[in-house]
Amino acid sequence: MKLFTSGDFHAFEKYHRINFVNTLSGLRSASLIGTMGEHGLTNLAIFNTLVHIGANPPFMGFIMRPHTVERHTYENILKQKSYTINLIHPGIIEQAHQTSAKFERKVSEFEKCQFTEEYINDFPVPFVGESRVKMGLSFVEQQHIQCNRTILIIGKVEQVSLSEDVIDDDGTINHEKLQTVAVSGLNSYYDNRRSAKLPYARP
Amino acid sequence: MKLFTSGDFHAFEKYHRINFVNTLSGLRSASLIGTMGEHGLTNLAIFNTLVHIGANPPFMGFIMRPHTVERHTYENILKQKSYTINLIHPGIIEQAHQTSAKFERKVSEFEKCQFTEEYINDFPVPFVGESRVKMGLSFVEQQHIQCNRTILIIGKVEQVSLSEDVIDDDGTINHEKLQTVAVSGLNSYYDNRRSAKLPYARP
Repeated sequence: MKLFTSGDFHAFEKYHRINFVNTLSGLRSASLIGTMGEHGLTNLAIFNTLVHIGANPPFMGFIMRPHTVERHTYENILKQKSYTINLIHPGIIEQAHQTSAKFERKVSEFEKCQFTEEYINDFPVPFVGESRVKMGLSFVEQQHIQCNRTILIIGKVEQVSLSEDVIDDDGTINHEKLQTVAVSGLNSYYDNRRSAKLPYARP
Repeated sequence: MKLFTSGDFHAFEKYHRINFVNTLSGLRSASLIGTMGEHGLTNLAIFNTLVHIGANPPFMGFIMRPHTVERHTYENILKQKSYTINLIHPGIIEQAHQTSAKFERKVSEFEKCQFTEEYINDFPVPFVGESRVKMGLSFVEQQHIQCNRTILIIGKVEQVSLSEDVIDDDGTINHEKLQTVAVSGLNSYYDNRRSAKLPYARP
């Protein structure tokens, strides 16, 4: 094993450092966050920082980069208070990745990346029709992180759409059946296979 | 697809709800957090809420459950200011899962779960000898989440140990070569295979 220390990180070429540090935390959930801005203009963006905050009530968070440039997702969530989180499967990886391109403000990534806007149960923001796990959330709070001005956005899961066939008897969602994609860093996508389901651990 | 709403979540049996909501966010990184308490007593606990906060400086976060009962990892991090994060591979899933059992305060999970305490480069807290990606962090800040009293703990990555063979030329760490395990919810473990590495997206 090789040891890398702060001096090494600093000496890395910029993109080498970005890739190295972004892939350091292993595999992460890849999801598309859907929002709606002014005049009904929808927005869709891929995020790889989804984090479970709590089960009851069901809270979920993600990290926004600093609000120093236009962040449509952030601005829309604060105004509209509702947003959708849609998981990714192998059939939509390339389209999903494409949402990370810098499009103009006046175009919707739903249209540009050929995703279907799906409206479910009167939820005010569209879901990704092609996704297999579609969550509708209401904004709950934001935490401003001091060290680098990123922002933790937390929402409450108000509704979820998915196939009943992928839910185990004990409520566990089977992501092998769903073929849920994981991502590492900004651009490495991973397929997965459930290898173990272990019982509650006791000493 | 079936639609589940807040009323359904509420009506779920308790463990059904815990499993459903915990597995909703898809795949997550599974890691062992090593800390040191009073009298040199080490502690090791599995966490599934690792989140990337920033690349330069390299910041990483994770969510602690409310500090209403003894949380050895939390108490040790606040006192000692240093901790380690160690990724999991298939050879150590069962031992890693076992660290989630409620052991007495006076025993170390390193010993109880048969992990080797490895000290590297004078870092004051042990790494997991059996892990393939070993990070040493210094505590930076905590954010108290209002909605459910969980806590986001953020640290700066001070050092990393891993094999050079798993680093692509562009700095990307290959988690297929490392066989890094992902977890969904509290107990479903997943193997992975890198299926795509896509270029930077442009409109």
